[in-house]
Amino acid sequence: MNARDTLPAPARALEHFILDGIVPARDMRLRILEQHGDMLAMGAPLAANVNDKGCAFGGSLTSLMTIAGWALIELMLRAHGHDCDVFVADSQVRYLKPVWEDLRAEARLDPEADADAFLVTLAARGKARIRVACRVVTSEGVAATLEARFVAIARSSDAHAAQ
Amino acid sequence: MNARDTLPAPARALEHFILDGIVPARDMRLRILEQHGDMLAMGAPLAANVNDKGCAFGGSLTSLMTIAGWALIELMLRAHGHDCDVFVADSQVRYLKPVWEDLRAEARLDPEADADAFLVTLAARGKARIRVACRVVTSEGVAATLEARFVAIARSSDAHAAQ
Repeated sequence: MNARDTLPAPARALEHFILDGIVPARDMRLRILEQHGDMLAMGAPLAANVNDKGCAFGGSLTSLMTIAGWALIELMLRAHGHDCDVFVADSQVRYLKPVWEDLRAEARLDPEADADAFLVTLAARGKARIRVACRVVTSEGVAATLEARFVAIARSSDAHAAQ
Repeated sequence: MNARDTLPAPARALEHFILDGIVPARDMRLRILEQHGDMLAMGAPLAANVNDKGCAFGGSLTSLMTIAGWALIELMLRAHGHDCDVFVADSQVRYLKPVWEDLRAEARLDPEADADAFLVTLAARGKARIRVACRVVTSEGVAATLEARFVAIARSSDAHAAQ
Protein backbone atom coordinates (compact mmCIF):
# COMPACT_ATOMS: atom_id res chain seq x y z
CA MET A 1 0.00 0.00 0.00
CA ASN A 2 1.25 3.45 -0.95
CA ALA A 3 1.83 5.85 1.98
CA ARG A 4 -0.45 8.36 0.23
CA ASP A 5 -3.38 5.91 0.62
CA THR A 6 -3.13 6.36 4.38
CA LEU A 7 -2.86 10.16 4.28
CA PRO A 8 -5.10 11.62 7.02
CA ALA A 9 -8.13 13.63 5.81
CA PRO A 10 -6.84 16.99 7.18
CA ALA A 11 -3.60 16.51 5.20
CA ARG A 12 -5.60 15.75 2.05
CA ALA A 13 -7.69 18.89 2.64
CA LEU A 14 -4.56 20.99 3.15
CA GLU A 15 -3.01 19.64 -0.06
CA HIS A 16 -6.17 20.67 -1.91
CA PHE A 17 -5.99 24.13 -0.29
CA ILE A 18 -2.31 24.52 -1.29
CA LEU A 19 -2.83 23.45 -4.92
CA ASP A 20 -5.91 25.63 -5.16
CA GLY A 21 -4.35 28.78 -3.69
CA ILE A 22 -0.59 28.78 -4.26
CA VAL A 23 0.16 29.11 -7.97
CA PRO A 24 3.88 28.12 -7.81
CA ALA A 25 3.01 25.01 -5.73
CA ARG A 26 0.66 23.94 -8.51
CA ASP A 27 3.37 24.58 -11.12
CA MET A 28 5.79 22.46 -9.04
CA ARG A 29 3.15 19.65 -8.96
CA LEU A 30 3.65 19.37 -5.22
CA ARG A 31 1.98 16.56 -3.19
CA ILE A 32 1.79 15.67 0.50
CA LEU A 33 3.24 12.13 0.55
CA GLU A 34 3.00 11.18 4.23
CA GLN A 35 2.02 12.64 7.56
CA HIS A 36 2.28 10.85 10.88
CA GLY A 37 3.40 11.86 14.34
CA ASP A 38 5.43 15.02 13.94
CA MET A 39 6.70 14.27 10.41
CA LEU A 40 5.29 15.54 7.13
CA ALA A 41 6.75 14.49 3.76
CA MET A 42 6.10 16.41 0.57
CA GLY A 43 7.05 15.43 -2.97
CA ALA A 44 7.27 16.86 -6.47
CA PRO A 45 8.32 15.34 -9.80
CA LEU A 46 11.80 16.22 -11.09
CA ALA A 47 10.39 17.07 -14.55
CA ALA A 48 8.49 20.11 -13.21
CA ASN A 49 11.48 21.27 -11.15
CA VAL A 50 14.48 20.64 -13.35
CA ASN A 51 17.30 23.10 -14.06
CA ASP A 52 19.66 23.57 -17.01
CA LYS A 53 21.98 20.83 -15.64
CA GLY A 54 19.19 18.20 -15.60
CA CYS A 55 19.00 18.05 -11.80
CA ALA A 56 16.56 19.76 -9.43
CA PHE A 57 16.48 23.58 -9.37
CA GLY A 58 17.76 24.83 -5.99
CA GLY A 59 14.79 27.16 -5.65
CA SER A 60 12.43 24.20 -5.91
CA LEU A 61 14.30 22.35 -3.13
CA THR A 62 13.94 25.40 -0.88
CA SER A 63 10.30 25.98 -1.81
CA LEU A 64 9.44 22.32 -1.17
CA MET A 65 11.18 22.29 2.23
CA THR A 66 9.63 25.63 3.24
CA ILE A 67 6.11 24.61 2.32
CA ALA A 68 6.54 21.19 3.98
CA GLY A 69 7.50 23.02 7.19
CA TRP A 70 4.59 25.41 6.81
CA ALA A 71 2.17 22.48 6.26
CA LEU A 72 3.53 20.67 9.35
CA ILE A 73 2.75 23.71 11.54
CA GLU A 74 -0.57 24.46 9.83
CA LEU A 75 -1.81 20.88 10.44
CA MET A 76 -0.59 20.89 14.05
CA LEU A 77 -2.51 24.12 14.66
CA ARG A 78 -5.67 22.87 12.95
CA ALA A 79 -5.50 19.64 15.01
CA HIS A 80 -5.52 21.79 18.16
CA GLY A 81 -8.43 23.93 16.95
CA HIS A 82 -6.37 27.04 16.17
CA ASP A 83 -7.28 29.22 13.19
CA CYS A 84 -4.07 31.07 12.32
CA ASP A 85 -2.07 32.69 9.58
CA VAL A 86 1.30 30.96 9.47
CA PHE A 87 4.32 32.76 7.95
CA VAL A 88 7.96 31.80 7.49
CA ALA A 89 10.13 34.43 9.24
CA ASP A 90 13.63 33.30 8.29
CA SER A 91 15.53 30.25 7.13
CA GLN A 92 18.97 28.83 6.62
CA VAL A 93 19.52 26.48 3.69
CA ARG A 94 22.40 24.17 2.83
CA TYR A 95 22.66 22.58 -0.59
CA LEU A 96 24.71 19.41 -0.15
CA LYS A 97 24.40 17.50 -3.42
CA PRO A 98 22.45 17.60 -6.68
CA VAL A 99 19.11 15.77 -6.90
CA TRP A 100 18.66 13.63 -10.02
CA GLU A 101 15.34 12.04 -9.02
CA ASP A 102 11.82 13.07 -7.96
CA LEU A 103 11.94 15.39 -4.96
CA ARG A 104 11.05 14.34 -1.41
CA ALA A 105 11.23 16.82 1.48
CA GLU A 106 10.63 15.84 5.12
CA ALA A 107 9.71 18.37 7.80
CA ARG A 108 9.90 17.82 11.56
CA LEU A 109 9.87 20.12 14.56
CA ASP A 110 13.38 21.22 15.45
CA PRO A 111 14.76 18.92 18.20
CA GLU A 112 14.83 21.95 20.53
CA ALA A 113 11.33 23.21 19.64
CA ASP A 114 8.72 22.97 22.40
CA ALA A 115 5.31 22.36 20.81
CA ASP A 116 3.46 22.69 24.13
CA ALA A 117 5.05 26.07 24.89
CA PHE A 118 4.26 27.21 21.32
CA LEU A 119 0.55 26.34 21.73
CA VAL A 120 0.35 27.89 25.22
CA THR A 121 1.98 31.13 24.01
CA LEU A 122 -0.31 31.23 20.98
CA ALA A 123 -3.42 30.82 23.15
CA ALA A 124 -2.23 33.49 25.60
CA ARG A 125 -0.86 36.11 23.21
CA GLY A 126 -2.41 35.32 19.83
CA LYS A 127 1.10 34.99 18.34
CA ALA A 128 3.93 32.48 18.74
CA ARG A 129 7.07 31.25 16.95
CA ILE A 130 8.45 27.76 16.41
CA ARG A 131 11.49 26.22 14.71
CA VAL A 132 11.22 23.51 12.05
CA ALA A 133 13.96 21.32 10.52
CA CYS A 134 13.51 20.11 6.95
CA ARG A 135 15.62 18.08 4.57
CA VAL A 136 15.50 16.78 1.03
CA VAL A 137 16.17 13.04 1.03
CA THR A 138 17.25 11.02 -1.99
CA SER A 139 18.29 7.43 -2.66
CA GLU A 140 21.85 8.66 -2.01
CA GLY A 141 21.17 10.44 1.28
CA VAL A 142 20.37 13.98 2.39
CA ALA A 143 20.72 16.49 -0.48
CA ALA A 144 19.67 19.74 1.26
CA THR A 145 18.65 20.97 4.69
CA LEU A 146 16.58 23.94 5.83
CA GLU A 147 16.12 25.29 9.33
CA ALA A 148 13.28 27.78 9.52
CA ARG A 149 11.36 29.80 12.05
CA PHE A 150 7.61 30.08 11.55
CA VAL A 151 5.26 32.60 13.14
CA ALA A 152 1.61 31.79 13.81
CA ILE A 153 -0.83 34.67 14.31
CA ALA A 154 -4.37 33.87 15.48
CA ARG A 155 -7.03 35.04 13.02
CA SER A 156 -9.73 35.33 15.67
CA SER A 157 -9.31 38.02 18.31
CA ASP A 158 -10.94 35.56 20.78
CA ALA A 159 -7.50 34.11 21.40
CA HIS A 160 -6.41 37.36 23.00
CA ALA A 161 -9.32 37.22 25.44
CA ALA A 162 -7.55 34.39 27.29
CA GLN A 163 -4.77 36.76 28.26
CA MET B 1 13.06 54.35 -21.90
CA ASN B 2 12.56 51.09 -20.05
CA ALA B 3 15.66 49.69 -18.29
CA ARG B 4 15.09 46.42 -20.16
CA ASP B 5 15.73 48.23 -23.47
CA THR B 6 19.32 48.84 -22.36
CA LEU B 7 19.92 45.28 -21.13
CA PRO B 8 23.39 44.15 -22.31
CA ALA B 9 23.44 41.34 -24.89
CA PRO B 10 25.09 38.79 -22.52
CA ALA B 11 22.28 39.38 -19.99
CA ARG B 12 19.67 38.87 -22.73
CA ALA B 13 21.41 35.66 -23.75
CA LEU B 14 21.50 34.43 -20.15
CA GLU B 15 17.78 35.17 -19.70
CA HIS B 16 17.08 33.08 -22.79
CA PHE B 17 19.28 30.28 -21.38
CA ILE B 18 17.44 30.41 -18.02
CA LEU B 19 13.95 30.36 -19.53
CA ASP B 20 14.97 27.61 -21.93
CA GLY B 21 16.58 25.35 -19.32
CA ILE B 22 15.05 25.97 -15.89
CA VAL B 23 11.43 24.85 -15.88
CA PRO B 24 10.40 26.58 -12.60
CA ALA B 25 11.98 29.87 -13.79
CA ARG B 26 9.74 29.69 -16.85
CA ASP B 27 6.71 28.96 -14.66
CA MET B 28 7.60 31.97 -12.49
CA ARG B 29 7.81 34.11 -15.70
CA LEU B 30 11.14 35.44 -14.55
CA ARG B 31 12.92 38.28 -16.41
CA ILE B 32 16.27 40.04 -16.09
CA LEU B 33 15.22 43.68 -15.62
CA GLU B 34 18.55 45.49 -15.34
CA GLN B 35 22.26 44.79 -15.20
CA HIS B 36 24.97 47.36 -14.76
CA GLY B 37 28.16 47.56 -12.74
CA ASP B 38 27.89 44.88 -10.08
CA MET B 39 24.07 44.93 -9.81
CA LEU B 40 21.60 42.60 -11.46
CA ALA B 41 17.82 43.01 -11.04
CA MET B 42 15.36 40.23 -11.79
CA GLY B 43 11.58 40.44 -11.88
CA ALA B 44 8.52 38.21 -12.02
CA PRO B 45 4.80 39.01 -12.10
CA LEU B 46 2.84 38.56 -8.86
CA ALA B 47 0.12 36.57 -10.69
CA ALA B 48 2.50 33.66 -11.42
CA ASN B 49 3.91 33.71 -7.88
CA VAL B 50 0.91 34.34 -5.65
CA ASN B 51 0.01 32.42 -2.49
CA ASP B 52 -3.29 31.70 -0.76
CA LYS B 53 -3.17 35.12 0.99
CA GLY B 54 -2.94 37.04 -2.30
CA CYS B 55 0.68 38.12 -1.75
CA ALA B 56 3.89 36.61 -3.11
CA PHE B 57 4.75 33.02 -2.19
CA GLY B 58 7.86 32.97 0.04
CA GLY B 59 9.41 30.23 -2.09
CA SER B 60 9.19 32.50 -5.14
CA LEU B 61 10.95 35.34 -3.29
CA THR B 62 13.78 32.97 -2.38
CA SER B 63 13.97 31.45 -5.86
CA LEU B 64 14.07 34.88 -7.49
CA MET B 65 16.81 36.15 -5.15
CA THR B 66 18.84 32.94 -5.56
CA ILE B 67 18.69 32.94 -9.32
CA ALA B 68 19.45 36.70 -9.46
CA GLY B 69 22.60 36.01 -7.43
CA TRP B 70 23.48 33.05 -9.63
CA ALA B 71 23.01 35.18 -12.78
CA LEU B 72 25.19 37.97 -11.35
CA ILE B 73 28.08 35.52 -10.86
CA GLU B 74 27.47 33.69 -14.13
CA LEU B 75 27.65 36.99 -16.11
CA MET B 76 30.74 38.16 -14.22
CA LEU B 77 32.49 34.88 -15.08
CA ARG B 78 31.43 34.97 -18.74
CA ALA B 79 32.67 38.60 -19.00
CA HIS B 80 36.09 37.40 -17.80
CA GLY B 81 36.14 34.48 -20.24
CA HIS B 82 35.52 31.75 -17.65
CA ASP B 83 33.40 28.73 -18.56
CA CYS B 84 32.11 27.41 -15.23
CA ASP B 85 29.33 25.56 -13.47
CA VAL B 86 27.99 27.83 -10.76
CA PHE B 87 26.15 26.35 -7.75
CA VAL B 88 24.55 27.87 -4.67
CA ALA B 89 26.18 26.29 -1.59
CA ASP B 90 24.15 27.81 1.23
CA SER B 91 21.93 30.79 2.00
CA GLN B 92 20.25 32.69 4.77
CA VAL B 93 16.88 34.28 4.10
CA ARG B 94 14.85 36.82 6.05
CA TYR B 95 11.23 37.49 5.18
CA LEU B 96 10.48 41.01 6.39
CA LYS B 97 7.09 41.90 4.93
CA PRO B 98 4.53 40.56 2.46
CA VAL B 99 4.82 41.56 -1.22
CA TRP B 100 1.55 42.67 -2.86
CA GLU B 101 3.04 43.76 -6.19
CA ASP B 102 5.15 42.35 -9.02
CA LEU B 103 8.43 40.95 -7.70
CA ARG B 104 11.79 42.69 -8.08
CA ALA B 105 14.97 41.14 -6.67
CA GLU B 106 18.37 42.88 -6.74
CA ALA B 107 21.66 40.99 -6.41
CA ARG B 108 25.05 42.53 -5.61
CA LEU B 109 28.36 41.13 -4.44
CA ASP B 110 28.52 41.03 -0.66
CA PRO B 111 30.29 44.20 0.61
CA GLU B 112 33.06 41.95 1.94
CA ALA B 113 33.41 39.83 -1.21
CA ASP B 114 36.63 40.26 -3.19
CA ALA B 115 35.88 39.73 -6.89
CA ASP B 116 39.56 39.91 -7.89
CA ALA B 117 40.57 37.24 -5.36
CA PHE B 118 37.64 35.08 -6.54
CA LEU B 119 38.81 35.25 -10.18
CA VAL B 120 42.48 34.66 -9.26
CA THR B 121 41.57 31.62 -7.12
CA LEU B 122 39.34 30.26 -9.88
CA ALA B 123 42.11 30.61 -12.48
CA ALA B 124 44.66 28.97 -10.18
CA ARG B 125 42.59 26.15 -8.67
CA GLY B 126 39.64 25.70 -11.03
CA LYS B 127 37.26 26.32 -8.10
CA ALA B 128 36.35 29.35 -5.98
CA ARG B 129 33.61 30.68 -3.72
CA ILE B 130 32.02 34.10 -3.42
CA ARG B 131 29.31 35.75 -1.30
CA VAL B 132 26.33 37.54 -2.79
CA ALA B 133 23.73 39.77 -1.10
CA CYS B 134 20.21 39.90 -2.56
CA ARG B 135 17.01 41.64 -1.58
CA VAL B 136 13.44 41.92 -2.74
CA VAL B 137 12.50 45.59 -3.06
CA THR B 138 8.96 46.93 -3.20
CA SER B 139 7.35 50.36 -3.28
CA GLU B 140 7.28 50.09 0.52
CA GLY B 141 10.93 49.12 1.02
CA VAL B 142 12.89 45.90 1.40
CA ALA B 143 10.60 42.87 1.79
CA ALA B 144 13.16 40.04 2.00
CA THR B 145 16.92 39.56 2.06
CA LEU B 146 19.13 36.62 1.10
CA GLU B 147 22.83 36.16 1.72
CA ALA B 148 24.26 33.28 -0.26
CA ARG B 149 27.57 31.64 -1.05
CA PHE B 150 28.12 30.49 -4.62
CA VAL B 151 30.75 28.05 -5.85
CA ALA B 152 32.17 28.25 -9.37
CA ILE B 153 33.87 25.17 -10.84
CA ALA B 154 35.74 25.52 -14.13
CA ARG B 155 34.38 23.24 -16.86
CA SER B 156 37.65 23.12 -18.73
CA SER B 157 40.58 21.35 -17.06
CA ASP B 158 42.91 23.90 -18.74
CA ALA B 159 42.33 26.22 -15.79
CA HIS B 160 44.20 23.80 -13.55
CA ALA B 161 47.25 23.93 -15.81
CA ALA B 162 47.95 27.46 -14.58
CA GLN B 163 48.64 26.16 -11.09
